Amino acid sequence: MNAGHKLRLKWLGIDTYQEAVIYMRRDCEVCRSEGFEAQSRVRVARNGIEIVATLNVIDSDLLAPHQASLSSAAWRQLDGREGDTIRVRPLPPLESLIALRSKIYGHRLNDEQMYCIIEDVARGRYPNIYLAAFVAACAGGRLDADETVSLTRAMVNVGQRLDWGSAPVVDKHCVGGLPGNRTTPIVVAIVTAAGLIMPKTSSRAITSPAGTADTMETLAPVALDLPAIRRVVGKEGGCIVWGGAVNLSPADDILIRVERPMDLDSEGQLVASVLSKKVAAGSSHALIDIPVGYTAKIRSQHAATVLKTLLEYVAGNLGLAIQVVFTDGSQPVGRGVGPALEARDILAVLRNEADAPADLRERSLTLAGTLLEFCGTAAIGTGVAHARRLLDSGQAWAKFVAIANAQGGLRTPPVATHTHPVCAVKGGRVTAIDNRLVSRAAKLAGAPRAASAGIDLHVMVDSHVDIGMPLFTVHAETPGELEYALSYLDMHPQIVVVEER
Amino acid sequence: MNAGHKLRLKWLGIDTYQEAVIYMRRDCEVCRSEGFEAQSRVRVARNGIEIVATLNVIDSDLLAPHQASLSSAAWRQLDGREGDTIRVRPLPPLESLIALRSKIYGHRLNDEQMYCIIEDVARGRYPNIYLAAFVAACAGGRLDADETVSLTRAMVNVGQRLDWGSAPVVDKHCVGGLPGNRTTPIVVAIVTAAGLIMPKTSSRAITSPAGTADTMETLAPVALDLPAIRRVVGKEGGCIVWGGAVNLSPADDILIRVERPMDLDSEGQLVASVLSKKVAAGSSHALIDIPVGYTAKIRSQHAATVLKTLLEYVAGNLGLAIQVVFTDGSQPVGRGVGPALEARDILAVLRNEADAPADLRERSLTLAGTLLEFCGTAAIGTGVAHARRLLDSGQAWAKFVAIANAQGGLRTPPVATHTHPVCAVKGGRVTAIDNRLVSRAAKLAGAPRAASAGIDLHVMVDSHVDIGMPLFTVHAETPGELEYALSYLDMHPQIVVVEER
Repeated sequence: MNAGHKLRLKWLGIDTYQEAVIYMRRDCEVCRSEGFEAQSRVRVARNGIEIVATLNVIDSDLLAPHQASLSSAAWRQLDGREGDTIRVRPLPPLESLIALRSKIYGHRLNDEQMYCIIEDVARGRYPNIYLAAFVAACAGGRLDADETVSLTRAMVNVGQRLDWGSAPVVDKHCVGGLPGNRTTPIVVAIVTAAGLIMPKTSSRAITSPAGTADTMETLAPVALDLPAIRRVVGKEGGCIVWGGAVNLSPADDILIRVERPMDLDSEGQLVASVLSKKVAAGSSHALIDIPVGYTAKIRSQHAATVLKTLLEYVAGNLGLAIQVVFTDGSQPVGRGVGPALEARDILAVLRNEADAPADLRERSLTLAGTLLEFCGTAAIGTGVAHARRLLDSGQAWAKFVAIANAQGGLRTPPVATHTHPVCAVKGGRVTAIDNRLVSRAAKLAGAPRAASAGIDLHVMVDSHVDIGMPLFTVHAETPGELEYALSYLDMHPQIVVVEER
Repeated sequence: MNAGHKLRLKWLGIDTYQEAVIYMRRDCEVCRSEGFEAQSRVRVARNGIEIVATLNVIDSDLLAPHQASLSSAAWRQLDGREGDTIRVRPLPPLESLIALRSKIYGHRLNDEQMYCIIEDVARGRYPNIYLAAFVAACAGGRLDADETVSLTRAMVNVGQRLDWGSAPVVDKHCVGGLPGNRTTPIVVAIVTAAGLIMPKTSSRAITSPAGTADTMETLAPVALDLPAIRRVVGKEGGCIVWGGAVNLSPADDILIRVERPMDLDSEGQLVASVLSKKVAAGSSHALIDIPVGYTAKIRSQHAATVLKTLLEYVAGNLGLAIQVVFTDGSQPVGRGVGPALEARDILAVLRNEADAPADLRERSLTLAGTLLEFCGTAAIGTGVAHARRLLDSGQAWAKFVAIANAQGGLRTPPVATHTHPVCAVKGGRVTAIDNRLVSRAAKLAGAPRAASAGIDLHVMVDSHVDIGMPLFTVHAETPGELEYALSYLDMHPQIVVVEER
């Protein structure tokens, strides 16, 4: 082996999304002496930081033989500068590949094997095909409860773990799939107004049109580093930030990279993802909201109960107190689906506006009340009333503004430049709204990448509509995306079912 | 939807291996109006041919906003020229993703679902992460026998299928894992000398240091198109070519792209891969050789019997007559392991050289004799003697030369520029040679990409060695790879086990 071959960085500006790619000339000394070829995995070091990148080979004068370039993601990871010296070395065969193949072939993994895999994942040593194979090999009930404990523990151990110095530290999570169910910012505002510590880190959307971090980002900066988070929580008792910037459960963030394009989120991965973030965030108490409904992520009471059992088993093994609640998942919550549209609904609830969505308000109060009781802040049976007082009095809104300002300043959510209403083709009663189709349409319209894009619902189940009345409005940032979503909706009119009386 | 946005091609010379990538400016009209971002999958058309490519976004002046570039593989597929106009359109959501996710979640797939997946695979619509997830979801016994029939049939149906006009058309396949077991060219030479039709298409290595196509390529051109194959077979009765150029079972070639870097080859995929190629190649009779040995791919008689049963079940459903034979898989065959080293052994056998490897010769005779009996060319019990006469008389060698010349000209295999012997550290008897370590070392030395690289064994099991005698020699094309293989061998001295008496 060797200490690495030196090359000089040149900026080419190629964005490959999150994949780390290095570009080198085919006839450079490194490629020739090491036998590197396109798709070789190599180690790239600069200034004490080393990453693993996939090689793309250059057969033109884009680069000189002594130069190399990096994809935008790799350039950022290494904090590259034009003309910098980097060192390139071969990546030795990964020992964890034996465990990965064992899992693919259907064998159980123990703590050590799981750690071995998750460490390589977290260090960026896995190319996307390994990540995809791992996720697929663990789906369909192929991770048992103890393997899920191993996976969760490994995910916690390869990242950093926060400590807030005092207990209880509370958290909440919604096992997603319900469009518009954006209770978190409201719950954080209420329970921190009640004096609890709730340093909430959220993810961006995996397969949905908006994650809490995406929505909150239209209201305040969320990509805070750890010192900034500590400052906000120290001052206000809580925050609503993106977890990705603080390296909690970094392996999870990397696995999501392949889960998202495959619309995949298996039970074991889901439990490990949720609980590893909570444990790493230093939480002592977590409330898990599972919406149950035919077109929600969890479709039946049976599936919800199975998931609850696994969540409780794994949380117990990790030393985290959790409370699991089942909620109505039969239709979207609030009116907006998409980052900015959901943010608008949140503001309406927090500000006690007359037309604020009642369902979003009541759900948030239920969850906040449950948390207040779970942590002993309110006596059993009095939590929701306590939460309602904090919301109605404006204390929750004042706390939300304080948190948003501490995070960098309250923002006004953007408004889409292209909108189009979709109207009822007959009058009658709304009998169903398909969560999955709503999400899909919102995504085709551009959410969550386009923050103002999404679906704005004007009806709920049991609403009465007349022919020609708008059922919902599509919001998009580009005409192409608007057209794309509308042509999908043309093919799927059952998104809102209206039955004549 | 739309007919596509026009862009002009610019050559950047970026080799991403087999992945089709398109490069476009972030601020180009296409990306802005369609909402494309890095990793978006898009359809790219030129002159009536359309492929699917992954988008990498350019944030520099590598391209002007009206220009696009393609990775080398995509450029070849579209037969691109500098300045050509291409059309770019969004890729609609893939319907087969529903079936793929169903398989990942552990459900059975029917004929129609499997066809839906395999058609998208064959048309290049799957990014590598989908391919990897599909392969992983089918491994570990998760494809049942009927799903394997569906997979095999789908693989045949999405590609072209050859018809040779007369029967029998014979074929053979070795279920790999045994280094140096390169009987195919010898068997083809013998049975075609006996008058049978054997249009042999072989694959390149998947996880081994050499596939038959890699080895044969050091002796003659193998990347023949279909008219060329028909000409060779019409003239000589047989050929030994690479199957990848004739679009037989194209989905299999694409799945191999992810199986290879993961060293993965599951039972269902293996059976579908082998049999789909045979059926698509128009074979009526196929001989399947399964070497059984502790360090071979198939480790036990039980596993071999399970595989035989599945092969026979699937072949029966596809209308292919097969005969499965179990052979000794306890150690490598011949002396060389790696394309050129194996080719040298083949030449020695065909030319009846005095020091030709006896094991390679006897195996080839057994397989050729079995085929002659299976197809009725020789009476039962006389096949091997018949094969031996054709080899000893020089008729097989003359036929091989004729085939190689018809394929484009007999070649002399290359010789490595860097070699290093590994010697016995004590005297005694060789009690074991580890097939897997031999293969691994040959691959680290550069095989099969570097044709002259590999391992040249100087001993077999039961050989007697003195201290300091060379056990084998490592061959490489670069000093880096030689060093790499040697350092691996340092850590794994059990590759050849010598026991003192």
